[in-house]
Amino acid sequence: MTMTSEWTELAGRTLACCADIAACSEVPGQITRTFLCAPMHDAHARLDAWAASLGLQAREDAAGNWRATRRSTNPTARTLVIGSHLDSVPNAGAYDGVLGVVLGLALLDALGDTPLPYHVELVGFSEEEGVRFGVPFIGSRALVGTAGELLDVADAGGRTVAQAIADYGLDVGRLDEARLTGDVLGYLEMHIEQGPVLEAEGRSLGLVEAIAGQSRLNLTFAGKANHAGTTPMHLRRDALTGASALVLAAETLARNTPGLVATVGSLTPLPGASNVIPGEVHLTLDLRHARDEVRLGALDQLLTVGDGIARERGLTFTHELRMEEHATPMDPALTALLGEAMRAEGHPASPMVSGAGHDAMLVGQVWPAAMLFLRSPGGLSHHPDESVLEEDVEAALRTSARFLRLLAEREEAR
Amino acid sequence: MTMTSEWTELAGRTLACCADIAACSEVPGQITRTFLCAPMHDAHARLDAWAASLGLQAREDAAGNWRATRRSTNPTARTLVIGSHLDSVPNAGAYDGVLGVVLGLALLDALGDTPLPYHVELVGFSEEEGVRFGVPFIGSRALVGTAGELLDVADAGGRTVAQAIADYGLDVGRLDEARLTGDVLGYLEMHIEQGPVLEAEGRSLGLVEAIAGQSRLNLTFAGKANHAGTTPMHLRRDALTGASALVLAAETLARNTPGLVATVGSLTPLPGASNVIPGEVHLTLDLRHARDEVRLGALDQLLTVGDGIARERGLTFTHELRMEEHATPMDPALTALLGEAMRAEGHPASPMVSGAGHDAMLVGQVWPAAMLFLRSPGGLSHHPDESVLEEDVEAALRTSARFLRLLAEREEAR
Repeated sequence: MTMTSEWTELAGRTLACCADIAACSEVPGQITRTFLCAPMHDAHARLDAWAASLGLQAREDAAGNWRATRRSTNPTARTLVIGSHLDSVPNAGAYDGVLGVVLGLALLDALGDTPLPYHVELVGFSEEEGVRFGVPFIGSRALVGTAGELLDVADAGGRTVAQAIADYGLDVGRLDEARLTGDVLGYLEMHIEQGPVLEAEGRSLGLVEAIAGQSRLNLTFAGKANHAGTTPMHLRRDALTGASALVLAAETLARNTPGLVATVGSLTPLPGASNVIPGEVHLTLDLRHARDEVRLGALDQLLTVGDGIARERGLTFTHELRMEEHATPMDPALTALLGEAMRAEGHPASPMVSGAGHDAMLVGQVWPAAMLFLRSPGGLSHHPDESVLEEDVEAALRTSARFLRLLAEREEAR
Repeated sequence: MTMTSEWTELAGRTLACCADIAACSEVPGQITRTFLCAPMHDAHARLDAWAASLGLQAREDAAGNWRATRRSTNPTARTLVIGSHLDSVPNAGAYDGVLGVVLGLALLDALGDTPLPYHVELVGFSEEEGVRFGVPFIGSRALVGTAGELLDVADAGGRTVAQAIADYGLDVGRLDEARLTGDVLGYLEMHIEQGPVLEAEGRSLGLVEAIAGQSRLNLTFAGKANHAGTTPMHLRRDALTGASALVLAAETLARNTPGLVATVGSLTPLPGASNVIPGEVHLTLDLRHARDEVRLGALDQLLTVGDGIARERGLTFTHELRMEEHATPMDPALTALLGEAMRAEGHPASPMVSGAGHDAMLVGQVWPAAMLFLRSPGGLSHHPDESVLEEDVEAALRTSARFLRLLAEREEAR
């Protein structure tokens, strides 16, 4: 397939399929599709139909992942996995996750009968967002064989992952079969950026070099609550002015450290009355960077700043680590090949970092992974107005098709 | 009365009377005594007994103020009003307000039969805290004749001030009679500082030169909520970092402006999730100073700073004035006389500002007013652990007795 009009038509069908799947929702008038909810059957049925038109027999594995295999004629073929997730956050947009799965189908459609020296395993993961069970990546964990440890995790209503699987009509006893065995050459995930970088730079596509590691902390400054009128400035131990100094220090450090993002998203002064000096402030700190040593160095530095602020201001400063996730670098060779495909299609391939987590984090721990980002208009995601441009979908299709060809050449030269 | 032991004994009785009144509470195990609650009858009864022992017939006026008049033998005598309030905040301490009323009684006790060329009107105001009706100073407004406009104000249960007066057993139709008529030479209020200044300076007593004026505002910074991981620092419009800059600017300005206090007591980032950049922050600003032009100048300056922060950071900044109270200077001549009495009793009389409101604000608008502060251990007030040192009570008694004598000399020389 090479005609411009055909790529455009395929991009249109990709978006139409995303819209069809968006109609499969737990909440009328919204897009809400959590792990193995009943409407996931309908979503799979839409994908089944397209796959069938390509001669592929799709199936659900025991973790509820939607799977379709395009087999190579090469008897010693390895497998390329292409995937993303089909679940959503509550009141979501139509593209987060879904677009990557549908793009995979469209890509197989574009391939037609072209032989490839590797199998393609297309996966629509059943769970990535962590909404229902508070633990993300159930689908990709099953693919790499580590979902078993989550079976007893319960949702807010007390039902476990194992029960949810049975409720959906699947056999949890066959979970091991969800694990992809055999020789896997790599994993490709296409996903909307969910951020403003590509739009700001006027680019359609982004080449992900790493998924950022993350530290999330709860911080507390404690001083002394006092009367706002009767306590002169020099006798105050105001926890909020101390916390404000740290908020700005975090911003300054992140601005001065390429690639670092630092966010204080929640901040609560106590008692919180307009005429009382805050005696205590609870705040969160979220730090992310593609390189763990940069993130951990920044964290150390900010904790030292917090201690210094406390010392200067007669406060106490305490911190509690709530989450710590290592950075996941994408596979250099596979990513280089994806960059080559981008450039060949006329797209700059300067690397960028994903600040959000993706299935590629899990899969990338086991197999070489590469990720292609599509521009997010307005940087908007996890929102009903989430969108994607048809021209970017076409660019992703052309680029991923080129990537498959380059990969075929590489694989044949092995 | 001049013997040291007698002053000490009288200070002890003053504290004992405050403890008796503390037992008159709406809430068992707490000190809570709002406007014309039933236990106020008991509080008045304790004061009645002491007044009766001095040959004074106390009464309640129609606003529920406790009043006792010590008449001068001088037929053309003017009146010195001595007073403070008998109501409390919820779960209060034993001294805020009450101490000033009891000190007035103790002072009359100390005077014995000593003739004075002025009448003394001792007033225990029924309401100063504004707890029940959201409007403070009901008692002192009645004394100066402006309480009538409050009669229809309703409490949380829908009962009005007029109904509360009737419920207590008083005749609201006689409210006009609560107004103090005749020639008033001045007002003296003794009150705990409710702040840490005297303790920090190692002083028993403070000479109040003014009650600070006050501006209270609601401020809002609005930017754009965004993903904490996918939004690089240079593309953020973080409302919380903007608000933090203003919090610190307010602190810096107040530190650099003698007498100014600036407090951000409440601050709420929205949506308030640890992994979302705050798109909006609501915060309060409380500014106080003894001179209105300083406070208003500081307010202008901080609003300009807020505008500048917003401009720099791509935010919007809006503000809404919630309260504006002018400063109330104490009467210079009466305050000078009180300072003379302090120095004569061995106390430094460097002037200080009251950051909290007092009945003297209302009374001082009509008659010359002077205020004497007593040290607040730990700066603590509006709290069950509120306390006062017996030595400071004795110092206040000696100083106020000296003030009455100096005032007598001044009055006789008129």
